Amino acid sequence: MNAQILSIGTELVLGQSLDTNSPWLSQQLAAIGIDCTRHVTVGDELDDIIAAIRLACDESDLVLITGGLGPTADDLTREALAAAMGVELVFRPECLEQIAAFFRERKREMHERNRVQAMIPDGATPIENTRGTAPGMRAKIGRAEVFVMPGVPAEMKVMFEGDVLPALRSIVDARGGAGGVIVQRTLRTLGMPESELGEKIVDLMARGRNPTVGTAAVDLVISIRINARASTPEEAAAIAERDATEIRKRLGAYVFGEDNDQVETAVARLLIEKKKTVATAESCTGGLVAKRLTDISGSSAYFLRGYVTYSNEAKSELLGVPMAMIDSHGAVSEPVARAMAEGCRRASGTDYALAVTGVAGPTGGTAQKPVGMVFVALAAADRTIVKELRLGESLLRGEIRDRSAKAVINLLRLELLKQNL
Amino acid sequence: MNAQILSIGTELVLGQSLDTNSPWLSQQLAAIGIDCTRHVTVGDELDDIIAAIRLACDESDLVLITGGLGPTADDLTREALAAAMGVELVFRPECLEQIAAFFRERKREMHERNRVQAMIPDGATPIENTRGTAPGMRAKIGRAEVFVMPGVPAEMKVMFEGDVLPALRSIVDARGGAGGVIVQRTLRTLGMPESELGEKIVDLMARGRNPTVGTAAVDLVISIRINARASTPEEAAAIAERDATEIRKRLGAYVFGEDNDQVETAVARLLIEKKKTVATAESCTGGLVAKRLTDISGSSAYFLRGYVTYSNEAKSELLGVPMAMIDSHGAVSEPVARAMAEGCRRASGTDYALAVTGVAGPTGGTAQKPVGMVFVALAAADRTIVKELRLGESLLRGEIRDRSAKAVINLLRLELLKQNL
Repeated sequence: MNAQILSIGTELVLGQSLDTNSPWLSQQLAAIGIDCTRHVTVGDELDDIIAAIRLACDESDLVLITGGLGPTADDLTREALAAAMGVELVFRPECLEQIAAFFRERKREMHERNRVQAMIPDGATPIENTRGTAPGMRAKIGRAEVFVMPGVPAEMKVMFEGDVLPALRSIVDARGGAGGVIVQRTLRTLGMPESELGEKIVDLMARGRNPTVGTAAVDLVISIRINARASTPEEAAAIAERDATEIRKRLGAYVFGEDNDQVETAVARLLIEKKKTVATAESCTGGLVAKRLTDISGSSAYFLRGYVTYSNEAKSELLGVPMAMIDSHGAVSEPVARAMAEGCRRASGTDYALAVTGVAGPTGGTAQKPVGMVFVALAAADRTIVKELRLGESLLRGEIRDRSAKAVINLLRLELLKQNL
Repeated sequence: MNAQILSIGTELVLGQSLDTNSPWLSQQLAAIGIDCTRHVTVGDELDDIIAAIRLACDESDLVLITGGLGPTADDLTREALAAAMGVELVFRPECLEQIAAFFRERKREMHERNRVQAMIPDGATPIENTRGTAPGMRAKIGRAEVFVMPGVPAEMKVMFEGDVLPALRSIVDARGGAGGVIVQRTLRTLGMPESELGEKIVDLMARGRNPTVGTAAVDLVISIRINARASTPEEAAAIAERDATEIRKRLGAYVFGEDNDQVETAVARLLIEKKKTVATAESCTGGLVAKRLTDISGSSAYFLRGYVTYSNEAKSELLGVPMAMIDSHGAVSEPVARAMAEGCRRASGTDYALAVTGVAGPTGGTAQKPVGMVFVALAAADRTIVKELRLGESLLRGEIRDRSAKAVINLLRLELLKQNL
């Protein structure tokens, strides 16, 4: 069973609002084993909406539509659905009564304009809206089951969960099950380039396998998505688990977590488990490393303090970096990164200290020290590690800072795992 | 001239990632007078991509495609474009050389797998990717001009602005210009509730006006969008300017900037103009205030240092907050916020110091000090201001931290403007 999702709204197609309904609905469908093959967004134009409904109904077993049900003149989904069904709109008194009740309960007067929301295509079934005024609709066009919901996310979600989802379950059951359910797993990796990673799992990414395995890269983190299909959630989870285990075996410590994990989530777990503490000394990241380490609730168990030593005086005064060293090597240098980390650890009395100094740009780069040159350092009781990053002059300031922060936190993760990659 | 935008990626159609490229591209098109009529998202399935390209090219003058250009087996946009054009992929040595140069500059080895990214449909023109490895492509299918760009937003945006946009301007000019342009202005405000703000500009928000005026609230910041339509950019800009001036007059210092300005952008401008310096002392925001103040290139002119005093020892040792004060009032209290700001200013020798202490949650709240209770403070030469925020227990940790950081930076903005709101 496959599905398409249509979202209607000029503000969406002009890019003035982000369509969060379609991704949410896709996830809900996947959870009950229905594949979504396409999202389509069109503006509040009658012909465009009719064409989109017809095309989707030609190609799919299920069509979910959101938006265009409001009371104003630019809300045309009711008319478009009627046209795609080849029927007229008819007045449904029970819908008007629900709309009137909605206003009564809120002690507000119903506007005459809201009457239009009680007009439903002949042969369609209205769906009550408990959170707003626009009723939803259910219809059948050709082989396609069609559900229309309001565009306001809060109204849509309640209607989907309360009415549409149970209806979908019945449809799936009546068809003898959906070809099962899909279970999603996502492994998150840091440090291995996407092409090399792809090479290592190329056989698992082959098309037509179950599970399907795909990769997506965002700001240094490469996510590996595993989608497993089976007739029960348990079976699907077992199939996904098999590939997850194999991928973890092949990629080792490059995998830092799952789903929405950040590298600092993994570090937090390890620090808490090992009862270790950390402090930070930052120049170019300007507090971002500390911010990430404290994004996690309960971070006071391992994060004690951070220094944002943006000026050279601050580096010297707070971390004891000798001014002569800064003068001779420059603030962006291996020795200064090392001295920052060691000075931070000493001043803070923590088990570990992290330090970052670099050229975040876009200005301030030189031939010897170009934008994107960053030194990240980790001081531990027995050793200090300094790593030079060359992040590339084409990156934006925010990207250089973000990647530097991830890289230095990853240093600590690997130290806690006692792994060098 | 009308356009459609296709985005390719199984992670998008399954709802695992949000498509932010299509809305961004729609906005760019609107700015040069090209109407976008449809967004379509399909997964990494060859037949689906081919069908989507063909349909879009049948219906539109312009088709923009993002995604599916990576080096791995599930990246199929190159093949699909070739199939839709009815041609073969051919190897382009100049593309491979650009990809190789990309790796060389970053001192990384190019992987054999990246070679596939130099395969381009016969007759298509490659577009250099200065931010990543996947070249873009330009082609013509029937009457439609087709541009293909990478799915990674940072790569896509640079390619769009550098190559695609100039090409689109030429196409529009060659066709004798578009049917009018839309100029967007966005005023950004902080501190006035949306309902009160809406009341103040209700007449400007009336439907059917040109420009149209709308509001959108995200994390305390309320943006006011002005969309003006006219036959030339100058005319449209003048229409937008009229409303922008009127709104600024009505809202005064609540307006902190335009477009993508953050409150720290406004503060940076004021600090540089007045040649003043600032330091930070943060507890619950964990470095976020320093991070925001240093998001801006050139921030070393005004930002000297920051303290992330997460532990009580750090507050006492680094900022001189008396331990007895922390014991009697608690770390989240008016006197501690005041002492943090004053101690930070003293230790840093800056003109201003900002301090934040609060309960970011989700754990750690009590009846007296619930989650969302935050004290923000500003120390200046002549006075210290402390403000208590009650951000509400329903907010996420990240939201509480984000809003606290914005609020304390806004304190400094108003101090620099000598305004109390």
